[in-house]
Amino acid sequence: MDLASAIDRVGPPLVRVLLRRLGDPPVRFSLWGAAEIGSEGRAPLATIALRDRGSLARLLADPEYQFGELFVAGRLAVDGDLVGALRLAFAAPRSAGRAARLLDALRRLRPHDRGHARGSAQHHYDVGNEFYRLWLDERMVYTCAYFPTPDDGLEEAQLAKLEHVCRKLALRKGELVFEAGAGWGALALHMARYHGVRVRAWNVSREQVAFARERAEKEGLAGRVEFVEDDYRNIHGRCDAFVSVGMLEHVGAECYRTLGAVIARVLAPEGRGLLHSIGRPRAQRLNRWTERRVFPGAHPPTLREMMEIFEPNGLAVLDVENLRRHYALTARHWLARFQAARPRIDALVGAERARTWELYLAGTVASFEAETIELFQVAFARVGNDRLPWTRAHLYTGEAPELGPAAGGDPPGGTRGAL
Amino acid sequence: MDLASAIDRVGPPLVRVLLRRLGDPPVRFSLWGAAEIGSEGRAPLATIALRDRGSLARLLADPEYQFGELFVAGRLAVDGDLVGALRLAFAAPRSAGRAARLLDALRRLRPHDRGHARGSAQHHYDVGNEFYRLWLDERMVYTCAYFPTPDDGLEEAQLAKLEHVCRKLALRKGELVFEAGAGWGALALHMARYHGVRVRAWNVSREQVAFARERAEKEGLAGRVEFVEDDYRNIHGRCDAFVSVGMLEHVGAECYRTLGAVIARVLAPEGRGLLHSIGRPRAQRLNRWTERRVFPGAHPPTLREMMEIFEPNGLAVLDVENLRRHYALTARHWLARFQAARPRIDALVGAERARTWELYLAGTVASFEAETIELFQVAFARVGNDRLPWTRAHLYTGEAPELGPAAGGDPPGGTRGAL
Repeated sequence: MDLASAIDRVGPPLVRVLLRRLGDPPVRFSLWGAAEIGSEGRAPLATIALRDRGSLARLLADPEYQFGELFVAGRLAVDGDLVGALRLAFAAPRSAGRAARLLDALRRLRPHDRGHARGSAQHHYDVGNEFYRLWLDERMVYTCAYFPTPDDGLEEAQLAKLEHVCRKLALRKGELVFEAGAGWGALALHMARYHGVRVRAWNVSREQVAFARERAEKEGLAGRVEFVEDDYRNIHGRCDAFVSVGMLEHVGAECYRTLGAVIARVLAPEGRGLLHSIGRPRAQRLNRWTERRVFPGAHPPTLREMMEIFEPNGLAVLDVENLRRHYALTARHWLARFQAARPRIDALVGAERARTWELYLAGTVASFEAETIELFQVAFARVGNDRLPWTRAHLYTGEAPELGPAAGGDPPGGTRGAL
Repeated sequence: MDLASAIDRVGPPLVRVLLRRLGDPPVRFSLWGAAEIGSEGRAPLATIALRDRGSLARLLADPEYQFGELFVAGRLAVDGDLVGALRLAFAAPRSAGRAARLLDALRRLRPHDRGHARGSAQHHYDVGNEFYRLWLDERMVYTCAYFPTPDDGLEEAQLAKLEHVCRKLALRKGELVFEAGAGWGALALHMARYHGVRVRAWNVSREQVAFARERAEKEGLAGRVEFVEDDYRNIHGRCDAFVSVGMLEHVGAECYRTLGAVIARVLAPEGRGLLHSIGRPRAQRLNRWTERRVFPGAHPPTLREMMEIFEPNGLAVLDVENLRRHYALTARHWLARFQAARPRIDALVGAERARTWELYLAGTVASFEAETIELFQVAFARVGNDRLPWTRAHLYTGEAPELGPAAGGDPPGGTRGAL
């Protein structure tokens, strides 16, 4: 018996073991046209087609990593609901007795292919502004949107998010805001235009900074918004509000205390702050494929981990909002736009890179829906700062909040000592 | 020179050292009619009168603990703004060079008086319902209120708090709610009456349980609200919502994981939960006097510590609100009512116990205002539960929130896979 026919014989039972391990999801495997396995008697959510025998060996040896590798190489295709299939994988129970042990044994045989990908580590941010323009909203906001209702569109939801953040910061006209990790500048420009503040915004990406500066010029806001090409650790000066949306994911947990110290150094005594970041309901590393191919070095923290920013640095947490389902919906919009723009995207970045992104976006939807990751907005101030909105009602009514007393003044309602 | 005149000579310079250590606050000391020290050239916020020479020695040796002891014994009196004076002490810088070293040396000489107080450890909850009735709101709610505006009264604010908690729980008619640490039953009865739910409420205090049962009878709610005299660790069954307001402070940090496991055991897959607790902006032990005389064994956790309840137990944090200033205002109301009812309180519990409570309430105001403590409401659900309000707007509009889909259904807006 030659190797090919040996694989044809052992392939189907091994796939059944894999499916059992995943809790027998409604998914069918098609093996190079030779066999169909799984999802007996049910309409499958998706059919996973392996094009050749070698891809099966790779997938069984290291499914977490090789699924992505094979998908991008075009050796594994998903026909049907890609998000649904990924979501099933994320929600699968973790151990299944003998099947698990067999797969673990196979896994120890996996090829050491770690080195190959280093060169592609910068995939995520070097794709170019033109690429993002094809599937983000018109303001180019590449972070979780806020949908007042789930039926709102992406444009409205990104605008609502910018406004939600500004309200949480309780911005007042004439204040100076520092932003860390400013992307293409949408939040900085929104704050300056609609809240009358000045903004200094830091970003390490030269391409994004150039884009944002040009945009500030065009919108006549260059005098009030300054984009600085530098790292958050070099932020200096004094601000009335500190905001960072979607940067913390890229800051290693070992730097959280430093980030908090930077904030504590620059925030005025009566200042307010907000951090917006992907997080976790429990400590867990990122999916290996995503970590290597999409977001090298990324770390979504748990809330417990995030507290290392605040508690040692005299900062008090005022408000935490978990926007997990808003991110799942945001990523669904991105994926739909991405798929609609697919021919242009393929032409712009090539089919391989397009598949990397398609899988990443589908995986993002799936992991927010299965809640292996979530989205935290954390509002904070210095310990002892009373000059803050009294409740959170203004976030929803849109009325400007009445702030508490300046330091040393009377408390709201004039109740101090006088009740 | 006899001992009395020796103390008369060293007393004033030692008090000056103490004041310097506290940052020279606008406070005056009066020493048994023999001398007045401090707050030169400024009107003092308060004058601290020491009645005898021995009390000065005790105060200098261990100010954190002896201030309370002497106050309760009537050997130290505060004339003026008690809260303001305590707030200055809480906000004082921690070290002051030579003065600090001198006081630390004195402190090592302090009498070992720890044993004396054991018998009074239960001061807090054995004072009797009649005592609390004299200064709490009419519903007998002994936890932080929620003031929609700072000018609202305590009655309205406690009612608003009960409602705020119910909205965060997104209660639906016919559901079963478990409450841990139910006090005199106000929240349980409110939920049953206004939200149409059934409630099972646990409490270890026999006196409170008896009071709450009688109240449920009187209000015609005994068929829908059951009070169980038992510990939270014995909670069993299955509930749609789990709530605990003001109990966590009395649960040791070493039991947080157990508490979380209890919640995870009883909460339905689509259930919601809320914990409401005094907390800290950073890890710190309770003031020693308060720990011993008022709340033996109490521990206000940091948010980081609280995460031990959720993260290891498959529970996801949805919403954290810091109501610190609402607690400061609540305690101001309690203190004002307490002082107004003082003659009746003295007659009911005696002057010493009354002074213990006065100092504790004033200290509560001061520590929330100086933000050595805070108040966290943490709303949560099981990881992966989508059947939740889409935003927090309903907390402020009062409209019943539309919940997400039942498990396996379509997401709100019908967007799943269809965008």
